[in-house]
Amino acid sequence: MAKPIYVLNGPNLNLLGSREPEVYGRETLEDVRARCERKAKALGFRVDFRQSNHEGELVAWIQEARTDAAGLIVNAGAFTHTSIAMLDALQACTIPKVEVHLSNIFAREPFRQHSYLSKAVKGVICGFGPQSYELAIEAIAAAIPKSGSG
Amino acid sequence: MAKPIYVLNGPNLNLLGSREPEVYGRETLEDVRARCERKAKALGFRVDFRQSNHEGELVAWIQEARTDAAGLIVNAGAFTHTSIAMLDALQACTIPKVEVHLSNIFAREPFRQHSYLSKAVKGVICGFGPQSYELAIEAIAAAIPKSGSG
Amino acid sequence: MAKPIYVLNGPNLNLLGSREPEVYGRETLEDVRARCERKAKALGFRVDFRQSNHEGELVAWIQEARTDAAGLIVNAGAFTHTSIAMLDALQACTIPKVEVHLSNIFAREPFRQHSYLSKAVKGVICGFGPQSYELAIEAIAAAIPKSGSG
Amino acid sequence: MAKPIYVLNGPNLNLLGSREPEVYGRETLEDVRARCERKAKALGFRVDFRQSNHEGELVAWIQEARTDAAGLIVNAGAFTHTSIAMLDALQACTIPKVEVHLSNIFAREPFRQHSYLSKAVKGVICGFGPQSYELAIEAIAAAIPKSGSG
Amino acid sequence: MAKPIYVLNGPNLNLLGSREPEVYGRETLEDVRARCERKAKALGFRVDFRQSNHEGELVAWIQEARTDAAGLIVNAGAFTHTSIAMLDALQACTIPKVEVHLSNIFAREPFRQHSYLSKAVKGVICGFGPQSYELAIEAIAAAIPKSGSG
Amino acid sequence: MAKPIYVLNGPNLNLLGSREPEVYGRETLEDVRARCERKAKALGFRVDFRQSNHEGELVAWIQEARTDAAGLIVNAGAFTHTSIAMLDALQACTIPKVEVHLSNIFAREPFRQHSYLSKAVKGVICGFGPQSYELAIEAIAAAIPKSGSG
Amino acid sequence: MAKPIYVLNGPNLNLLGSREPEVYGRETLEDVRARCERKAKALGFRVDFRQSNHEGELVAWIQEARTDAAGLIVNAGAFTHTSIAMLDALQACTIPKVEVHLSNIFAREPFRQHSYLSKAVKGVICGFGPQSYELAIEAIAAAIPKSGSG
Amino acid sequence: MAKPIYVLNGPNLNLLGSREPEVYGRETLEDVRARCERKAKALGFRVDFRQSNHEGELVAWIQEARTDAAGLIVNAGAFTHTSIAMLDALQACTIPKVEVHLSNIFAREPFRQHSYLSKAVKGVICGFGPQSYELAIEAIAAAIPKSGSG
Amino acid sequence: MAKPIYVLNGPNLNLLGSREPEVYGRETLEDVRARCERKAKALGFRVDFRQSNHEGELVAWIQEARTDAAGLIVNAGAFTHTSIAMLDALQACTIPKVEVHLSNIFAREPFRQHSYLSKAVKGVICGFGPQSYELAIEAIAAAIPKSGSG
Amino acid sequence: MAKPIYVLNGPNLNLLGSREPEVYGRETLEDVRARCERKAKALGFRVDFRQSNHEGELVAWIQEARTDAAGLIVNAGAFTHTSIAMLDALQACTIPKVEVHLSNIFAREPFRQHSYLSKAVKGVICGFGPQSYELAIEAIAAAIPKSGSG
Amino acid sequence: MAKPIYVLNGPNLNLLGSREPEVYGRETLEDVRARCERKAKALGFRVDFRQSNHEGELVAWIQEARTDAAGLIVNAGAFTHTSIAMLDALQACTIPKVEVHLSNIFAREPFRQHSYLSKAVKGVICGFGPQSYELAIEAIAAAIPKSGSG
Amino acid sequence: MAKPIYVLNGPNLNLLGSREPEVYGRETLEDVRARCERKAKALGFRVDFRQSNHEGELVAWIQEARTDAAGLIVNAGAFTHTSIAMLDALQACTIPKVEVHLSNIFAREPFRQHSYLSKAVKGVICGFGPQSYELAIEAIAAAIPKSGSG
Repeated sequence: MAKPIYVLNGPNLNLLGSREPEVYGRETLEDVRARCERKAKALGFRVDFRQSNHEGELVAWIQEARTDAAGLIVNAGAFTHTSIAMLDALQACTIPKVEVHLSNIFAREPFRQHSYLSKAVKGVICGFGPQSYELAIEAIAAAIPKSGSG
Repeated sequence: MAKPIYVLNGPNLNLLGSREPEVYGRETLEDVRARCERKAKALGFRVDFRQSNHEGELVAWIQEARTDAAGLIVNAGAFTHTSIAMLDALQACTIPKVEVHLSNIFAREPFRQHSYLSKAVKGVICGFGPQSYELAIEAIAAAIPKSGSG
Repeated sequence: MAKPIYVLNGPNLNLLGSREPEVYGRETLEDVRARCERKAKALGFRVDFRQSNHEGELVAWIQEARTDAAGLIVNAGAFTHTSIAMLDALQACTIPKVEVHLSNIFAREPFRQHSYLSKAVKGVICGFGPQSYELAIEAIAAAIPKSGSG
Repeated sequence: MAKPIYVLNGPNLNLLGSREPEVYGRETLEDVRARCERKAKALGFRVDFRQSNHEGELVAWIQEARTDAAGLIVNAGAFTHTSIAMLDALQACTIPKVEVHLSNIFAREPFRQHSYLSKAVKGVICGFGPQSYELAIEAIAAAIPKSGSG
Repeated sequence: MAKPIYVLNGPNLNLLGSREPEVYGRETLEDVRARCERKAKALGFRVDFRQSNHEGELVAWIQEARTDAAGLIVNAGAFTHTSIAMLDALQACTIPKVEVHLSNIFAREPFRQHSYLSKAVKGVICGFGPQSYELAIEAIAAAIPKSGSG
Repeated sequence: MAKPIYVLNGPNLNLLGSREPEVYGRETLEDVRARCERKAKALGFRVDFRQSNHEGELVAWIQEARTDAAGLIVNAGAFTHTSIAMLDALQACTIPKVEVHLSNIFAREPFRQHSYLSKAVKGVICGFGPQSYELAIEAIAAAIPKSGSG
Repeated sequence: MAKPIYVLNGPNLNLLGSREPEVYGRETLEDVRARCERKAKALGFRVDFRQSNHEGELVAWIQEARTDAAGLIVNAGAFTHTSIAMLDALQACTIPKVEVHLSNIFAREPFRQHSYLSKAVKGVICGFGPQSYELAIEAIAAAIPKSGSG
Repeated sequence: MAKPIYVLNGPNLNLLGSREPEVYGRETLEDVRARCERKAKALGFRVDFRQSNHEGELVAWIQEARTDAAGLIVNAGAFTHTSIAMLDALQACTIPKVEVHLSNIFAREPFRQHSYLSKAVKGVICGFGPQSYELAIEAIAAAIPKSGSG
Repeated sequence: MAKPIYVLNGPNLNLLGSREPEVYGRETLEDVRARCERKAKALGFRVDFRQSNHEGELVAWIQEARTDAAGLIVNAGAFTHTSIAMLDALQACTIPKVEVHLSNIFAREPFRQHSYLSKAVKGVICGFGPQSYELAIEAIAAAIPKSGSG
Repeated sequence: MAKPIYVLNGPNLNLLGSREPEVYGRETLEDVRARCERKAKALGFRVDFRQSNHEGELVAWIQEARTDAAGLIVNAGAFTHTSIAMLDALQACTIPKVEVHLSNIFAREPFRQHSYLSKAVKGVICGFGPQSYELAIEAIAAAIPKSGSG
Repeated sequence: MAKPIYVLNGPNLNLLGSREPEVYGRETLEDVRARCERKAKALGFRVDFRQSNHEGELVAWIQEARTDAAGLIVNAGAFTHTSIAMLDALQACTIPKVEVHLSNIFAREPFRQHSYLSKAVKGVICGFGPQSYELAIEAIAAAIPKSGSG
Repeated sequence: MAKPIYVLNGPNLNLLGSREPEVYGRETLEDVRARCERKAKALGFRVDFRQSNHEGELVAWIQEARTDAAGLIVNAGAFTHTSIAMLDALQACTIPKVEVHLSNIFAREPFRQHSYLSKAVKGVICGFGPQSYELAIEAIAAAIPKSGSG
């Protein structure tokens, strides 16, 4: 069976829908998962969608993705701005990778405008709420070699 | 007739395909225009695709978009990092706006990692080459109110 | 039964009493817990007192406090200076919150003089050793609406 | 007779109650004085409560406290961020000292997030409005040696 | 009787005419007062013109202006660059306020190019020597509500 | 015939009245022109009032002003903060020059608080909306030698 | 039985041998463990060799080393540059401690050139690949008091 | 016919001879053109000498030089310090390129000591007034492959 | 009668002898005055020795020194590092001026290593305790023109 | 005969044993030489051990090492932090190179925490006193190709 | 006999031709000397060409040039970026002076982009390899007054 | 015989009298030596007065002073701002030490306002021209224990 696209979510994203809805919107993380599944299915892929508040667990999942995933989408939440460990894991992972954010991080507080992860991904999509994830799946689908999805 | 989506390109993007292809790829700006037109058509929109090396002309086009466009996609090239004038024009323009870049600017030289424009757009998409534009059209199509496209 | 006040302690606070006593004093964390319990009881509250070396666990506890606690006191230890994830969790948690420190962090090394968490709390109390916690309980007791404690 | 606790207030605190009430609350400085007196009395102390807009006068009062006060609480207002002269006076004054602020200065503008005075006090309490003073009296009462209060 | 416009002058402005005339010109502060009085009178106002070398006195005058003045013009001299206490007083004072300088501070040493006060005033006028004051009176006259001057 | 006072306006000022009216007010640039003309006429001058979104055109107009204008008022808009080319042109232009801004730029975002142009003008007037221009005309009228206006 | 030397490895070091071999070499972490065991044995010591991607687990192991280890060697990987929590744990741990790195971190990206941990260790050895660990064992063996190894 | 050497001049260089002669000397730009033509002729080349105040026009000329010029000399004036767009154009242009300045920019104001363009040229010559151009022609003549000039 | 040398002392210097004697020594300010008087007398001068905790009073004394003193020695204490007002007064005062410090301020905390006043004095003497004043009197005696002392 | 390992020592290392023994220990530089010779001999190498207070002489020795040494160990003392000339010489020298320090420079003053030399060496060993040199000899012995030592 | 042009070369330039030839080219310093001699002779001058790794020696040669040379060309190598002593010597030397570099230092590492010497020379020429020297001789020949070369 | 006071002079001080006399005055270094000798003799001391352009030589002289001098006066010229090696030598030298400068370095360029040496001396005297040395001899004479001079 084809390898899935990993969609990894960082700390506090489990609160989606209730946390600061004026910034992050009212859809829950389950809603986002459903969106991702629909979009992936339409493009002939499936997703493995996870969330963790633990940097170490996210590092491990990225490591796992090296062999078990066809592509990787990461919304690292607050770890975006602080985790060199996730950067290192991403640099060790050579499958297509996309960074997403629900909000437009470049229009927020200064400490949210720098991402350690950007250096290690193909591209960045931010600001479109849950649609950011759908666009990322589209982007990654185009980057996965055909043999990788079959 | 429905208002078009403006797709505005900044300095040196007319060189696309020949300038530093290892960074920007081998498609020409005409190829990108064709992609945009196809994608927009598929979503029920049309595009007005322009390029200029003049900051003042780009400012004027953004001003024009306030009344004549349903949405705005901007790849300001080098002006991304220096043009407060374009930021001001974007802030005065209340239609949906998306910033795109062919390359992943956050993985390049430090002076390319800051965008004045990000503050005034809904979201940013970068790093996917010409596909960045297609994703942006998709994103903006979702953001344009139905009455705006009819 | 009334909801408790959560008192959350970050990394290395389990060493209290043995670690650098000239900075942190000789009372153990159990001693501090006992102080908190006494003080809370005197004010008609009870405390739920915890310690973790894991940022992710602290984030989860703050999330839990959103619904299960009447107030929150946090001494994040070293995470005070590095954890945007805890800041985000605190911002999503709308009960009364107080930041405490045993030592006067503003009289220590420069990297200990900045707190990410301060932005998301009502107030800060630092420098009074274990008494810092008692003062914080007093402060939070005054901030908890009567219905919250009943 | 026992020495009093000095409670020194810096510039503009005489406006309390009318100045930016959304930041500083609606109680007047007289109200705060009354709170301090009640709290001190309950703990077996009395307070000497003063306010000045003059840095030089505040410096002199701190100097005076060296011999005439049992403890010192200081809310230096704007001088918190600019007065090395007050820092020097505090460093020359070896009785227990606490810094208080009505607002949470660490959640305000960057230039309000640095205190010169913190280096020379036992601890800092901020963000609890007039209650900050009461907590400070409690903290200082615990730090004053018994002979000092008798 | 109508409330006056306060014109407050900071440290060393009493030396005007003799101090560095190549920077500040040869008119004395009395000459400036006369100019202000003439200009105000022509516009139906009167001025209360003062100078002090004491930050605390200037703070007190700004506080007084809250109730006793129709408008406020301030040339804080060196305190422009260092006094958060004056900023706080100005922020507590809701009548029309204008900052003036004799010299063009933005063309001088770097430490003279930042003003704490600018954040709290309607506008800034600098570089026109004594005429700066006349322009300020004109500006403030336009900003004072008619009932305020009657 | 006497030389006019040039009043040069930079990018996006043509949007005046519709762009962010809470910052820039509701008068149009035509209204400002009319104000300037009235004010100048009253003082025995006339104005040549222009606007451009092109830095190069503004540079050329400043160059032209060297011989064709009696004085120069410049509101460079966003170019205030980025254009060394306009600074150079102003430094080459020895007639009286005043910098104006509608808003108080020193109370706005940090990147709007620095002006390259201030170094090359007699003075700065900002924050008074359209009245800023009238005050500038008054200031420049006083600085133009009598023979220059005759 | 004599206490072992703890050799603690941080995030992503489990990937050794496959991750960026041009930077980190082709030996696996098991190979490094074997090297350490051989070297320690030759010097009359044994090692307890561990790896974790979790900051909290590494903190706990350092705490444990306070009583259970004769010496401590730490390669904190990415946490080197971000973990004040590990610094605090190390400062609370008074046995001999050495920091090692496989690569020469001082010849890499700027954000890898600062170590929080260096402040709390006896010395640093970096750049010699797996040999760094052997040198560290040698260094620590010389620093462990004889009674500590018997 | 052999391709010419482009000599491109940026904003305000048309004022040469009258603008700040103590910095830039008294020769006009026409004099510099004549010097360049003489020098080029002597070396078997011809020059195409241009000036513009428009960044966009300079960008276009550099783009044009990619195919139409044998070499490129650029004195970007103020754009030296601000134009990433010109840097991008130069990086896309693979013929020999030299940056010149009339004045020694490294002995002037700090903001004139950084050049964006230097990264994309073979070398820099500054401080020799009009002779800078002659030296640049000599340098570029040596760098143009023989077939390029024939 | 000949004009005296003013010796002006800033905040907290009245505490000399009791404040941090390990930094400032055990002589009192009266002792220093006596030293100054002896030294001055030996050189044919007399001193006017004053201390104030008020910046405004020190400013006024410097202003007074312009006409009433033959020379000026200033130890501004903490105001050294913060008072632009004293700098301005010193710049307006053209008699010989020397800055002194009891301690070697360049070997202390970073915020004590910058002096605003140094720009406006002939020279600086620091680190020699009370002898700093004697050396300053010697230095200033040499700088006072003979007619000034007669 | 086989080429030696150069061990080069910078300024003030000749004072070893008497200079700040609490930082640098009590062994003399001769003691360190003896240690190096013993260690090298044990590994089949010999050392050429030198010290100089002259940057130029150290540069010359590094240049000499290019052809005359099998490996290079450098403790540049204070030049570590200031000598780009030594960096350049090291970059021109392709034999194995190791940087050593007696003290842990990363736990000292900020200006001692940056090394220009680190960029040009294989690795760094610091903090182990004279043992640092022995470890360095071991490290370099492993890096010297067998033919280089024969 | 006419005074020569001094051509002074700093540290490591004696390695020219073997050190990092991809940066500095393959010509030796002797080749450069020959080029300089030929060029100077053609222009009616002679050169005195020297190299030293010692800052003190270079300082002395610049001092000597004050009286013994007609002009001075300096390539200070690494001292360019660190030697205030050479800056001081150059400022004391009033003959024509030119700074040269083989490589384009402005396109290299940040710490190589600042030159202390530039402040004290007429102009700078860099990036043209050995030709930089020839251009400098041409530049200096034009700057030497006729009587200076006779 | 009593040990002398070493007076050490750094680079370019041998030019005294001819180098920038508006900054450094017209006396030669020989004149300064004579002044020092006279002053020392009057106080019962003798001086050993030296100058070098070599940092290494100055380091060696300071080392020598440890045993051979009763006190040390150093004017390190440009090395003041760059030589950590001289700082280290001074820190190893426990006799009384004074730093002098002819000019007031704190009123000069920013890079001349920081001294590495100040951390290691008793005090600093600057700005009094050759008199700075005489004052330093007086200061050091007071600091030398009587047995040291006998």
